[in-house]
Amino acid sequence: MAKYVYLFREGNKDMRNLLGGKGANLAEMTNIGLPVPSGFTVTTEACNQYYADGKQISEEIQNQIFEKVSELETMAGKEFGNPTNPLLVSVRSGARASMPGMMDTILNLGLTDEVAEGFAQKTGNRRFVYDSYRRFISMFADVVKGFDKNKFERILETQKEKKNVKFDTDLTDEDLYEVTQEFKKLYEQLDGNPFPQDPKVQLLEAVLAVFRSWDNERAKVYRKMNEIPDSWGTAVNVQEMVYGNSGETSGTGVAFTRNPATGEKKLYGEYLINAQGEDVVAGIRTPQSIETLKEVMPDVYQQFASIAQSLEKHYKDMQDMEFTIENGKLFMLQTRNGKRTASAGLKVALDLLNEGMITEEEAVLRVSPNDLDQLLHPTFDVVALKNGKVIAQGLAASPGAGTGKIYFHAKDVMDASARGEETLLVRLETSPEDISGMAKSKGILTVRGGMTSHAAVVARGMGRCCVCGCSSLVVDEEKKTLTTSDGTVYHEGDYLSIDGSTGMVYGEKIPTVEASISGDFETFMNMADQYRKLKVKVNADTPADAMQAMKFGAQGIGLCRTEHMFFSEERIFQVRRMITAETKEKRIEALNELLEMQRADFVELFRTMKGLPVTIRYLDPPLHEFLPHTNEEIKVLASSLNMTFEALKERVDSLKEFNPMMGHRGCRLDVTYPEIAVMQTRAVLEAAILVIREGIEVKPQIMIPLITDLTELEYVKGLVTETAEQVLTVNQIKVDYQIGTMIETPRACMLADELAKEAEFFSFGTNDLTQLTFGFSRDDASKFLNDYYEKKIFENDPFAKIDQHGVGLLMEYAIKSGRKTRPEIELGICGEHAGEPSSVAFCDLIGLDYVSCSPYRVPVARLAAAQASIREKANK
Amino acid sequence: MAKYVYLFREGNKDMRNLLGGKGANLAEMTNIGLPVPSGFTVTTEACNQYYADGKQISEEIQNQIFEKVSELETMAGKEFGNPTNPLLVSVRSGARASMPGMMDTILNLGLTDEVAEGFAQKTGNRRFVYDSYRRFISMFADVVKGFDKNKFERILETQKEKKNVKFDTDLTDEDLYEVTQEFKKLYEQLDGNPFPQDPKVQLLEAVLAVFRSWDNERAKVYRKMNEIPDSWGTAVNVQEMVYGNSGETSGTGVAFTRNPATGEKKLYGEYLINAQGEDVVAGIRTPQSIETLKEVMPDVYQQFASIAQSLEKHYKDMQDMEFTIENGKLFMLQTRNGKRTASAGLKVALDLLNEGMITEEEAVLRVSPNDLDQLLHPTFDVVALKNGKVIAQGLAASPGAGTGKIYFHAKDVMDASARGEETLLVRLETSPEDISGMAKSKGILTVRGGMTSHAAVVARGMGRCCVCGCSSLVVDEEKKTLTTSDGTVYHEGDYLSIDGSTGMVYGEKIPTVEASISGDFETFMNMADQYRKLKVKVNADTPADAMQAMKFGAQGIGLCRTEHMFFSEERIFQVRRMITAETKEKRIEALNELLEMQRADFVELFRTMKGLPVTIRYLDPPLHEFLPHTNEEIKVLASSLNMTFEALKERVDSLKEFNPMMGHRGCRLDVTYPEIAVMQTRAVLEAAILVIREGIEVKPQIMIPLITDLTELEYVKGLVTETAEQVLTVNQIKVDYQIGTMIETPRACMLADELAKEAEFFSFGTNDLTQLTFGFSRDDASKFLNDYYEKKIFENDPFAKIDQHGVGLLMEYAIKSGRKTRPEIELGICGEHAGEPSSVAFCDLIGLDYVSCSPYRVPVARLAAAQASIREKANK
Repeated sequence: MAKYVYLFREGNKDMRNLLGGKGANLAEMTNIGLPVPSGFTVTTEACNQYYADGKQISEEIQNQIFEKVSELETMAGKEFGNPTNPLLVSVRSGARASMPGMMDTILNLGLTDEVAEGFAQKTGNRRFVYDSYRRFISMFADVVKGFDKNKFERILETQKEKKNVKFDTDLTDEDLYEVTQEFKKLYEQLDGNPFPQDPKVQLLEAVLAVFRSWDNERAKVYRKMNEIPDSWGTAVNVQEMVYGNSGETSGTGVAFTRNPATGEKKLYGEYLINAQGEDVVAGIRTPQSIETLKEVMPDVYQQFASIAQSLEKHYKDMQDMEFTIENGKLFMLQTRNGKRTASAGLKVALDLLNEGMITEEEAVLRVSPNDLDQLLHPTFDVVALKNGKVIAQGLAASPGAGTGKIYFHAKDVMDASARGEETLLVRLETSPEDISGMAKSKGILTVRGGMTSHAAVVARGMGRCCVCGCSSLVVDEEKKTLTTSDGTVYHEGDYLSIDGSTGMVYGEKIPTVEASISGDFETFMNMADQYRKLKVKVNADTPADAMQAMKFGAQGIGLCRTEHMFFSEERIFQVRRMITAETKEKRIEALNELLEMQRADFVELFRTMKGLPVTIRYLDPPLHEFLPHTNEEIKVLASSLNMTFEALKERVDSLKEFNPMMGHRGCRLDVTYPEIAVMQTRAVLEAAILVIREGIEVKPQIMIPLITDLTELEYVKGLVTETAEQVLTVNQIKVDYQIGTMIETPRACMLADELAKEAEFFSFGTNDLTQLTFGFSRDDASKFLNDYYEKKIFENDPFAKIDQHGVGLLMEYAIKSGRKTRPEIELGICGEHAGEPSSVAFCDLIGLDYVSCSPYRVPVARLAAAQASIREKANK
Repeated sequence: MAKYVYLFREGNKDMRNLLGGKGANLAEMTNIGLPVPSGFTVTTEACNQYYADGKQISEEIQNQIFEKVSELETMAGKEFGNPTNPLLVSVRSGARASMPGMMDTILNLGLTDEVAEGFAQKTGNRRFVYDSYRRFISMFADVVKGFDKNKFERILETQKEKKNVKFDTDLTDEDLYEVTQEFKKLYEQLDGNPFPQDPKVQLLEAVLAVFRSWDNERAKVYRKMNEIPDSWGTAVNVQEMVYGNSGETSGTGVAFTRNPATGEKKLYGEYLINAQGEDVVAGIRTPQSIETLKEVMPDVYQQFASIAQSLEKHYKDMQDMEFTIENGKLFMLQTRNGKRTASAGLKVALDLLNEGMITEEEAVLRVSPNDLDQLLHPTFDVVALKNGKVIAQGLAASPGAGTGKIYFHAKDVMDASARGEETLLVRLETSPEDISGMAKSKGILTVRGGMTSHAAVVARGMGRCCVCGCSSLVVDEEKKTLTTSDGTVYHEGDYLSIDGSTGMVYGEKIPTVEASISGDFETFMNMADQYRKLKVKVNADTPADAMQAMKFGAQGIGLCRTEHMFFSEERIFQVRRMITAETKEKRIEALNELLEMQRADFVELFRTMKGLPVTIRYLDPPLHEFLPHTNEEIKVLASSLNMTFEALKERVDSLKEFNPMMGHRGCRLDVTYPEIAVMQTRAVLEAAILVIREGIEVKPQIMIPLITDLTELEYVKGLVTETAEQVLTVNQIKVDYQIGTMIETPRACMLADELAKEAEFFSFGTNDLTQLTFGFSRDDASKFLNDYYEKKIFENDPFAKIDQHGVGLLMEYAIKSGRKTRPEIELGICGEHAGEPSSVAFCDLIGLDYVSCSPYRVPVARLAAAQASIREKANK
């Protein structure tokens, strides 16, 4: 029979999965002899069993709980429900990972009318007892029953007003007795039943409430955001009460062993005299700095400081502790590794290393790769943010905070920027024409599109913050208005603020704080790099992006999307001319114009990258993405092209596709229009020659997109090599170039052994590969994926984290068979997943050579890769 | 060193791959002692070498050719280029499979001015010699040089006019000499060089021309249509001339051992006196029936009849023979298995079996499955067709011939049909609303869409002929006009004819002949069934389709597309109401209406199928396929739904998708709207109960589409089983139903082992699987796939024939891992490929249990499966 309940002394810190974080640490502290009130933990397995049993606590589990209650009674020398010597307990949730949104604490459980009266007589502190009872009732009503706690709060406030006092502590025993009676009345009114007078019933209801809270909305959202599996479940901790509210030599507080904002090595925290835990957080009275405890209770302070130090040594990390002082005696109620800002995280890791507490490997593992974003992007001013009004939430598509006047067209953003305004670009969705406007804005907000929509991808590349898929907003681009779900209308020029790290949209201006990178960053990242096997390259299309990425440590360009070079005003015309050409001759004319421009771009890129590899992907998107959409635009283009409106319109219509993502794109364009591949090859090779003649090394890698077949690859490769050899012969020079392919269709994965005959490198395009493997398009899936999370069919967005189970299986198959044909083949990934830590770890595990991500994800990928490699070594 | 040239006596009939069909049979006839003029064959490998060498005949091959010329000279006792005793030869192409479009024959090669003069003296038949020379020059000019043969024809005509005679045979020796001189002049004028006077040069040029012709447009198109690989190459046969034009005791002819139209066992053919081979085909003089030869040259006839019989015995099949009589002596120039109509094919196979010439297995293999189509669909009247003017060619999307007045809207077709008119429906593309109109028409012609477009799939299901993707036509549905590439405009009500077996569109009315199935069909199919392992089911959505398929031998319904039941006028309203519902309640109201209708449909289907399994696929297409598209339709629907136009328009817009094929469809609809699956389950189970209570057995198989994940399948299956159990409990009855899934995403293939835990059967949806594996949509791919065939990247349309190499690999992976989990799992296929013979053979090979195809493909699939199984056994 499974053991569902553990006394604290039966556990230890390594039983986190079973006992939850809080339970495991309470057990650990108990066992290393720290002053911890006794108690027990109901396991996470009990929680899972509760769900398996149709949301019921089985008799077996109930029996085990009450057995432990008996043991607790014996240990404490107190008795549950005994009026003269009552055992009171706290009940707290405790999942494997700390999780806001779970049920809050219930204190003082075990109090009943009878117990309260007896306890008051025994302690001679009637005020303390009814203070505890009223707290218990309101907490129980709130967290177990879900009643509005403000209704209880109002009774307390009324009492204070009646008595004309400011603080709860100023209320007398009689006042609190009256409040208690009012609370019970209100409870009965709300519940239909009187407040339960059996401590066992109270306890079971509390445990049920914790289990239930595992599945409440907030907890679910938090889990999804933080990638915590639904299957983990939560434990419940039941612990003998100690009373910080039993008088002036009592109190309660929280403290960190180091400053969580800066990492400074100094006890940091606050406490309240004559209070229970909740008061510190509630902010009714202002808590005092932990420093002052040194004078108020010097012995307690010394004892606490010494415990803090020993806990830090024991856990080898900065600790976040809760404590209570009961009549001058210190009790530890919780310890855990403390949350910290990214910069504190770096400092603490490096300090602990220097103090000899942890190894380099451990130090590298201490910083969460995603936290690095904080160092690289602006954040909101924390104080100002508190007053921010959230008007909508979308997808956290590109991190950082941005505030500005909203504009609905890229052109308007550019005009406003020219006037010196801070702007946000608001669109239904962005398209390539919007890129210049996006670059000028402080952030981008869209109504449609997912984590890999155009807006998201481009914003991440630019390091611009972006909130996508904010579908509760109604945006009218023509009327230039944005309407929230409650009907509030924002007009062009109104201020909004967006947080691309959380997806929140705020209805006003919120000041931002610029990112700043300290010396710790360099030191830490260089240390991490020592452990890294995976190379990290960047997806960059412009010299500016490339330069930024080099600063962040990129080891080459893994993906230059040549089509992104085509959108500036003077170029798009030539592109459109090329696309709408009705003969090969006309197409070549336009391509020749583009050749000049593209060659100049490549020259810049090659110069910037100074001999690092530059992977250039040939034209990929469906041609109609470049086409004019409105009749107005078509008219303008037609007249520039000397075509009739009707003829151009017909050509534009003929290029429309039912499913453009599965249409005429990628290498298929080169098959139909070989002259495109010829032009791009000339641009690459001629640029390389120019730069080599400047004395700079150049390593171009030409990458053919969307390959499905060996013969197809042979055909396009043939165009490339033939052109390249011509260019090199004419110029009488050698260039060390490679030709490889994207692996982004399931067929390419299945036939990778064949493709490797011709491809010198593979780059997995996991965006397309995910779309095709699942059969859903990233642009459309956001509409129904929410239902999949809701119904627990999927735990993650497969466009954000690689679907290791399915897509990953195809990748592994391709890697294995590709290497079989060509053992030295270079293998990488350039999808959006390449900057996501768990996906980076997967790439390391399956043996890729490099990941290539957007510039601002480069440090994240570097750290994630280093950690993956350290963890793999440890697992061997 | 490779042997590139074989004397006829060095070969035999089994060397077809190397010598081509014609060469192998000439060798065979030589070796069994038939009178065949001597000669040699340049192999298909020489042809491949010619292409490998950059379209040049290597010296090695040239040497081998001229060695054999020497041997031929010795054997014939004649000499190439010797004026007094010249060797003249014919040069003919001969691929492995007979192939129109290849280079035509060249006769009388070896004639030069000098040879002609000497030959005339030697034979004393100047007329015959110059008749031969002028033929040679014009054939050489035409097939080797590609000059317009009409220009030569005109010289001959002018000469006849000048001499006032009707037939070539009426021209004198002097006339023909003059013609010859004129021909040489014209040749020199066109070529810039005089007509070659060296027989060796003539021969090499002719061989080159044959090799070249392997890659001409017509040959390429024919290969693609007939699935002949480009790599086969063609052989060249060089043979000593015999002269059917050397006088009144000479002649030439063609004959079949049995009647190729009916299969009747009786010599059938025709011949011409004093003629060379080309004259029979050219139709200048009317040939005589072979019967008459019995009287004209009784000995020759007897000899020929006896040879014909022995050839049939030797080849065990009906033969198609060419012969020449030279001065009363019979020569055999070719024999091959004769082409025949489908009904002749059946009769010949059964007769040969009864005559003890072949085994049952051989008989089954003798009929091409695709030929059965001829028996099942109307065909054009052969005589009338000769005068048909082809105005365009599209994809042969659904077999059969249709003629009628063209209409551009389904409604107009229905009105015209009601008036008793024969109609063709012409559309840019069809959509589900067009179904009733399609059913009333004699055929469907569309401008867009491929072999698996809506029009193609539905037409095949109905057995209606259809030509799709006819992109050279411009159709204006509003103006109701169709314009051909030469600018001819056809209006509503004009007659057109289409042939869905060839893709041809004709610009007038061509009478059709109804299909008729003879008793041979039954006998033959039943015999074939004895050898078949694969079950053949039908894709049928209506009782009419199901009934038709039962007649064709279907063993159940493998795919009932429930959405196809939703398009009739009274239903589409409820569907639209369901889709546009803004609340679950409203959606359920509409679903309840649909429940009644769908239950009634299933009752009919179950009754029709009398206990055979019926696989019902749950709602699959993107919802917006059902939506109104025009503002007009939206207005009408809005008022019926009591919604504002704006509200409905917004809802319709919100359902639009970027890539609907990868959008909100299949089981994803059930995840979002579980009430749909619940309704469909009720409809299936309640219908089953009604029919079971009538005493009829029912075997429903519920099929969930587009599954990608086990949890997803568990969720939808949960909805189905819960609902089903409720229905069964309420009705206190048991129904033997199964739940399975489509395997149509690459992820489902990769995770088939997991899916098999919950799925009792798999049905491969190879349409979607092909789309996703390649990453191209069937609707868009037709635009660029032509370039892929053109450039020899793909040999076949992967939507028509299963891509065994890629998609097939995924299928095999899924089959293996699915069976591992659940050995008894039933495996089938219900994509369009299931009716294509080579794909059926593949399905048999990889071990599927059944194929399910459209009703009119059922006999095709049955025969293909039987043949596959016989061939596999032979290969073991």
